[in-house]
Amino acid sequence: MKLKTVGIKNIRYPVMIREKSGGGLQSTVASITLQANMPRRFRETCVATFLDVLRKYQEDMSVTIFPKLLVETRDQLQANSAHLEMTFPYFLEKKAPVTKTSGLMEYTCRFAGGIGEDEDFILSVWVPSTTLCPCSKEISEFGAHNQRAEINLNVKSKGFIWVEDLISLVESGASCEVYSILKRPDEKFVTEQAYKNPMFVEDVVRKVAEMAQAHPDIYWFSVGVESFESIHKHSAYAYVDSSGIEA
Amino acid sequence: MKLKTVGIKNIRYPVMIREKSGGGLQSTVASITLQANMPRRFRETCVATFLDVLRKYQEDMSVTIFPKLLVETRDQLQANSAHLEMTFPYFLEKKAPVTKTSGLMEYTCRFAGGIGEDEDFILSVWVPSTTLCPCSKEISEFGAHNQRAEINLNVKSKGFIWVEDLISLVESGASCEVYSILKRPDEKFVTEQAYKNPMFVEDVVRKVAEMAQAHPDIYWFSVGVESFESIHKHSAYAYVDSSGIEA
Amino acid sequence: MKLKTVGIKNIRYPVMIREKSGGGLQSTVASITLQANMPRRFRETCVATFLDVLRKYQEDMSVTIFPKLLVETRDQLQANSAHLEMTFPYFLEKKAPVTKTSGLMEYTCRFAGGIGEDEDFILSVWVPSTTLCPCSKEISEFGAHNQRAEINLNVKSKGFIWVEDLISLVESGASCEVYSILKRPDEKFVTEQAYKNPMFVEDVVRKVAEMAQAHPDIYWFSVGVESFESIHKHSAYAYVDSSGIEA
Amino acid sequence: MKLKTVGIKNIRYPVMIREKSGGGLQSTVASITLQANMPRRFRETCVATFLDVLRKYQEDMSVTIFPKLLVETRDQLQANSAHLEMTFPYFLEKKAPVTKTSGLMEYTCRFAGGIGEDEDFILSVWVPSTTLCPCSKEISEFGAHNQRAEINLNVKSKGFIWVEDLISLVESGASCEVYSILKRPDEKFVTEQAYKNPMFVEDVVRKVAEMAQAHPDIYWFSVGVESFESIHKHSAYAYVDSSGIEA
Repeated sequence: MKLKTVGIKNIRYPVMIREKSGGGLQSTVASITLQANMPRRFRETCVATFLDVLRKYQEDMSVTIFPKLLVETRDQLQANSAHLEMTFPYFLEKKAPVTKTSGLMEYTCRFAGGIGEDEDFILSVWVPSTTLCPCSKEISEFGAHNQRAEINLNVKSKGFIWVEDLISLVESGASCEVYSILKRPDEKFVTEQAYKNPMFVEDVVRKVAEMAQAHPDIYWFSVGVESFESIHKHSAYAYVDSSGIEA
Repeated sequence: MKLKTVGIKNIRYPVMIREKSGGGLQSTVASITLQANMPRRFRETCVATFLDVLRKYQEDMSVTIFPKLLVETRDQLQANSAHLEMTFPYFLEKKAPVTKTSGLMEYTCRFAGGIGEDEDFILSVWVPSTTLCPCSKEISEFGAHNQRAEINLNVKSKGFIWVEDLISLVESGASCEVYSILKRPDEKFVTEQAYKNPMFVEDVVRKVAEMAQAHPDIYWFSVGVESFESIHKHSAYAYVDSSGIEA
Repeated sequence: MKLKTVGIKNIRYPVMIREKSGGGLQSTVASITLQANMPRRFRETCVATFLDVLRKYQEDMSVTIFPKLLVETRDQLQANSAHLEMTFPYFLEKKAPVTKTSGLMEYTCRFAGGIGEDEDFILSVWVPSTTLCPCSKEISEFGAHNQRAEINLNVKSKGFIWVEDLISLVESGASCEVYSILKRPDEKFVTEQAYKNPMFVEDVVRKVAEMAQAHPDIYWFSVGVESFESIHKHSAYAYVDSSGIEA
Repeated sequence: MKLKTVGIKNIRYPVMIREKSGGGLQSTVASITLQANMPRRFRETCVATFLDVLRKYQEDMSVTIFPKLLVETRDQLQANSAHLEMTFPYFLEKKAPVTKTSGLMEYTCRFAGGIGEDEDFILSVWVPSTTLCPCSKEISEFGAHNQRAEINLNVKSKGFIWVEDLISLVESGASCEVYSILKRPDEKFVTEQAYKNPMFVEDVVRKVAEMAQAHPDIYWFSVGVESFESIHKHSAYAYVDSSGIEA
């Protein structure tokens, strides 16, 4: 019998992520999971070895540097294969739609990569947004129920993709975008924007999927949308991945 | 130096809760925390002793039986004081507002009691509901942002109060109630009802507080309302307790 | 483009699970997720339809009845395919190893099934246990660090398997079993038992995998073990599935 | 009737914390809750106002700067009273006990302050550690069950206290400290250290309480210890605060 993987789960570590705009670095705290198929004699020192390698890379992390961390981790552990995941909150300046007031929006991002048996790299973002129910709008004399929703997009790509570009692709996918600071003219705008643009979770999933499919560098993706229904205690959820899409 | 309390945290246990309607018993799973100020020689057998006592009471639990469980736990542990909390999901049949379609709604309830030093009993409910923003409605040509909110009411009372009555008191406190099953006429109703009844979290807190204050048996309460804003990633929150209320 | 699935996430509902011993039924509260590939006109009534079907089955649920719920849900939604998951706490009487004092132990179980495109049924259990570190024991003059660990076993089987049998298979897989009530002779027993039986997470994974492989009815499985290390803030984790096992 | 507080809950924001050693700044991500008793006309712009103030302070935060953030927030909101909480992961270099191998340890810290009605400042730390059961050691021929525990200390102080000093005070309170990287000689050391130093949760609570009481600047504190028992599925928990302590 062959053991598949051994490793550590949910260790938190500070990392600095290279930003698209300005070429700066953003400090954040990642939750990291490492699994590797390594010789038994390396298992005891696995954490020490990995944290040594991580220390070298923590001060300048990006979609292109992550694979180097993965390769060096695999090499140092003399593992046949290794899998590494790094999930972290990521903050972007975002301007309110009318007053252009700027505020920091928080997104969740993940770098996940395998080397050896299952070689690939998946970039993921979780983006908050608003969904407004088309059925509720259609049947009601006024108003329409709406709520916060979370869109998760996971992609495999041929070329380099910035986390910022993936967030930007997703953010226009729902009834309206979400902001950290909204003044009165902004609140009027987002309320009316959502009302003019009603979407079920399946509509959001389809729209984001179409944009992902149209992206020249993305060759696989999955989209999941969870809507925290304002009229129920449960969530509505829709999901699609590339394999379920016809040309 | 005197040690305040020792005990167990977050043990899960099946319990049967006496229902108001029909006099039946509802099976659920409680998360239980026990803290007691007991002699050292009883600490090792604390869990065994408590679970023995709990077993006697688990098949018929209610607001009036809970204090007996507390007293017997204190006595068996020979503790000066003891504090017990039992949090559980509770299900009620609820009819949709127009079609009267019946569905099970889930609420969270808690019995929390102290005996000895801090003698009291607090009954708590967490009720999902809808809030619709008055500002958004006022400034927008059409629509208004709305979202799921959670109302938490905690009370101390002179007489017996059913969990069902507390839930019912809270449920009418927000822009609209939440249901498990809604058909088209029901969805039209709740959409329009919320739109006609805009409320900030502070309005909900005030309305629920007024009802609690008007209740003849409630002599202390606190209300907290968290609204999962559909236009932001953060929650709006308001809180009041009896001590902050003037006659 | 074809949408893969739409549905609901994390709705909680009371269910009664058929027990192996005595043929009784155990009341518990399940967290349920449903995804289906259904015609658009059925989506609005999806929740109402599903809860109607669930109501018929909630009072007598088991590994054999669950597929019927899945088939009827699919039929009522006129879906090409459907996927249903039901996760619930499950309680078993367990006797302490020496004094035979009986107490209720809590386990987490899951029924997960697909019909249509991905037809299968996976039965899962999460079992708490103790791991004692072989390296720590070997190098120390006295003592050895040990901790709570959680073993997760997921299986696909040809024939009927009781949840109870799966729990029982897993429970003997680690350094020592975990109990709800232990008197002094029992505590001595489990302490010494763990010390005599040191195991890394990879040893537990291998042992449980061997037992699963030897079971005549299991044709696929995966095992994951997370050990909440007493000497670190992070967890050790090992994983294996049937595809990584050589004859 | 007077409304007590309105505000926001669980907004995440990057902050830089002033470090004791070297006078540098550590980047982390805080989860922030703000409640204030402000005039109604300020409520709509509450988030924008607070985030404006926060932006000024986020790049240099400490126990002494936090009260200034609180005062300015209160002033800008024209609130009678305000309460602010900031919880964040904090990392410290920690050397293994024998080999002196250095690794980053993660702690959770919180600044919580009130101005107006309930004027005070509470500094909190959550520190992972190891507890080894005295009873298990005494009755067993070899070994003793041990597990990870979490110690929470909350203090009010007359003078300035570094988070680092509070962590250091707590860390020596249990059977043994926890580290991020341990080589073989270190693992031998912590195993034997814990075995030589058995403590129940109540012993840890008492020891930490004694140290807090002996600290010249601390005039109020509470200590809670949760031990994730390796032989049970539940936690053992002990708690004490200054009011339960006799001279």
